[in-house]
Amino acid sequence: MTESAQLITDMGRKARAAFTMLAGVSDAQKSEALTAAARHLRASQATILAANQRDMESARERGLSDAMLDRLMIDEGRLEAIAAAVENVANLPDPVGQIIDRSERPNGLVMERIRVPLGVIGIIYESRPNVTADAAALALRSGNAVILRGGSEAIESNRAIFDAMTAGVVEAGLAEHAIQLVQTTDRAAVGAMLKASGLIDIIIPRGGKSLVKRVQDEASVPILAHLDGINHTYIGKDADPDKAIAIAVNAKMRRTGVCGAMETLLIDQDYRAPGALVRALIDAGCEVRGDDAVLELDERIVSAEAADWDTEYLAPIVAVAMVNGVDQALEHIADHGSHHTDVIVTEDTAIAEKFIQRADSAIVMHNASSQFADGGEFGLGAEIGISTGRMHARGPVALEGLTTYKWVVRGTGQVRP
Amino acid sequence: MTESAQLITDMGRKARAAFTMLAGVSDAQKSEALTAAARHLRASQATILAANQRDMESARERGLSDAMLDRLMIDEGRLEAIAAAVENVANLPDPVGQIIDRSERPNGLVMERIRVPLGVIGIIYESRPNVTADAAALALRSGNAVILRGGSEAIESNRAIFDAMTAGVVEAGLAEHAIQLVQTTDRAAVGAMLKASGLIDIIIPRGGKSLVKRVQDEASVPILAHLDGINHTYIGKDADPDKAIAIAVNAKMRRTGVCGAMETLLIDQDYRAPGALVRALIDAGCEVRGDDAVLELDERIVSAEAADWDTEYLAPIVAVAMVNGVDQALEHIADHGSHHTDVIVTEDTAIAEKFIQRADSAIVMHNASSQFADGGEFGLGAEIGISTGRMHARGPVALEGLTTYKWVVRGTGQVRP
Repeated sequence: MTESAQLITDMGRKARAAFTMLAGVSDAQKSEALTAAARHLRASQATILAANQRDMESARERGLSDAMLDRLMIDEGRLEAIAAAVENVANLPDPVGQIIDRSERPNGLVMERIRVPLGVIGIIYESRPNVTADAAALALRSGNAVILRGGSEAIESNRAIFDAMTAGVVEAGLAEHAIQLVQTTDRAAVGAMLKASGLIDIIIPRGGKSLVKRVQDEASVPILAHLDGINHTYIGKDADPDKAIAIAVNAKMRRTGVCGAMETLLIDQDYRAPGALVRALIDAGCEVRGDDAVLELDERIVSAEAADWDTEYLAPIVAVAMVNGVDQALEHIADHGSHHTDVIVTEDTAIAEKFIQRADSAIVMHNASSQFADGGEFGLGAEIGISTGRMHARGPVALEGLTTYKWVVRGTGQVRP
Repeated sequence: MTESAQLITDMGRKARAAFTMLAGVSDAQKSEALTAAARHLRASQATILAANQRDMESARERGLSDAMLDRLMIDEGRLEAIAAAVENVANLPDPVGQIIDRSERPNGLVMERIRVPLGVIGIIYESRPNVTADAAALALRSGNAVILRGGSEAIESNRAIFDAMTAGVVEAGLAEHAIQLVQTTDRAAVGAMLKASGLIDIIIPRGGKSLVKRVQDEASVPILAHLDGINHTYIGKDADPDKAIAIAVNAKMRRTGVCGAMETLLIDQDYRAPGALVRALIDAGCEVRGDDAVLELDERIVSAEAADWDTEYLAPIVAVAMVNGVDQALEHIADHGSHHTDVIVTEDTAIAEKFIQRADSAIVMHNASSQFADGGEFGLGAEIGISTGRMHARGPVALEGLTTYKWVVRGTGQVRP
């Protein structure tokens, strides 16, 4: 066994033991551990900011981009936000123990499905050190043990945040290894996590496309991942022009770098005000790449190439196509979409319901901006990610997505004939 | 691309197109397709039995064991059972379209989670040709497209059953490729299915441990699988001796080859009638392998070796250990169990609830035989398998386990601030 595999095996065993102990812990105790962790995060401000300074200095020496430095940086305000987020998770309702359904069989057996934690969760992430606190809080709140593996550039910050979280866990009397941090920056440790079937129950990658792709390709452990957000907004024939403009501009321009941003705009050829719509986007600072029909709407529009329909820009650029009715819109989405968030804007309820039924997306919206694709906006209280896979959990994932269920069968001595 | 990869890619594309068409099909139409399929199965009796005869002859020439020949064989009675099972699935309630939950946000957005089919399901199975009808029926009833790959020894029988199923599908006006059968017996086709991410959404292996293990090791597509059923029955201190005997003998001996059979019996050291319990098992024809304390109960008991605690016998053999209280029983199950079905027999409700909470099994039972571990007995109407994994679905899996959900967001023009 390699050194990395040995390390992950040891951590996995400790996590499994901690998970077993967590099964006997009350909701109040899990909540108290996170409240205490938030307190320790605030009390450790000097230590955490100093650790982050060391990470920032090495990162600057290594010539990291401004965008990466910004993701890495923690100041007083950001640390307070991290602590507040942990407190928020402490106050969310605990899904563990919920009875999903119940039935009584003719032979008197009573069957219940009861929500239980998933088990040992591995989180593999990149430069944002807040994930250390966020992900640990969500995993622990739902009764899971967690193994965290952050980016090497954030190792000092992650250690300092992890120490504060662990202090909260221990103060509340929970198993110390309920949260563990991979302390080595050796990349082989990631590979060992991805192959740790039987020790790690699920891996959640959080980061850019190359990280998620590597995890998807290499993992033998089940994963919960978000790959692309090639999100469409279809403006139907009977769309209200004011809503169409407001929704399209917000969906594209509110924040262009988030996974819920619109990347392709589909305009029905019978929609009455396509010119005003694309001009509103251009005026908001967006580059519009259109097909031949769209090009005629404004001379500032550039010609879209084939690759544009399959591109997640995460930038102020939008691909725009004219389509002939909802069926063609659905066909375009089936061919080019990424099953993340797709939107119809229309005042025609029948057409909206058809779109809702047929679009094979984790999130389908009617008359709303795709930028609402976020666990907080969905009322989940938090979010560990948005799943574009089809199994287990789809769309925004928070506490419930980190649980599974067990069947409980209560009898009075029944045997099977 | 290899020939097998090309074949599976083509089949996957046809399946995806069929899946898209199924989204527009009514519940009644899906049900009617299965009723028609059952009719065609009965009408094709001569063809199917003749095809099965050809499989049986080749199998005998190749020297297959009697047990394998029995699994392969179809007679009139078995064909009628296959048709009746398809009819039964036709009459089950359709889970697709169910609203799982619904909430309204302060900004007026209404969020619903709606049950939708999983997508394209791959089934990889061995010699039992009834799986061709069973699995196709369950997949189709829940709106999925399915790609079937059965054992080479059953290829003629599978083709004949598949033709009858397809006739039903086409008669009801559904997409012909909603059900497809891999017509080649080339083993490389299995490998291609396991790697068909993006084309096949989930693989369900049905067969012996070596098949399931291969699928688990090689698949990059998510899988829903049942590996071991090392099931424990713990007889608590306060167990009723009559219930203890009835449950233990039924759990072990009703059918020894099923995945819900008891493999290990744990007896509390303070249980009052351990001798009668093990004698009842021996008298029922079971070999008892005991630890030192158990050996003293009867001279016919043989000494258990370390491997016995981790063995799924699927035979009239049971490993028996004395344990000191429920905590030690839970520890034994955590160390040696396979998270399938574990049982406590006791009249002490508090101890039973502790066991139910702590045992990390897909199915936990109190005062009932583990042989009830079966989708039909759970009221699911059918079963595509029992999942021992933790993600997506756990325990018996039927129609609901072949679905996922989408989020539907209904707005009136909301944009995100």
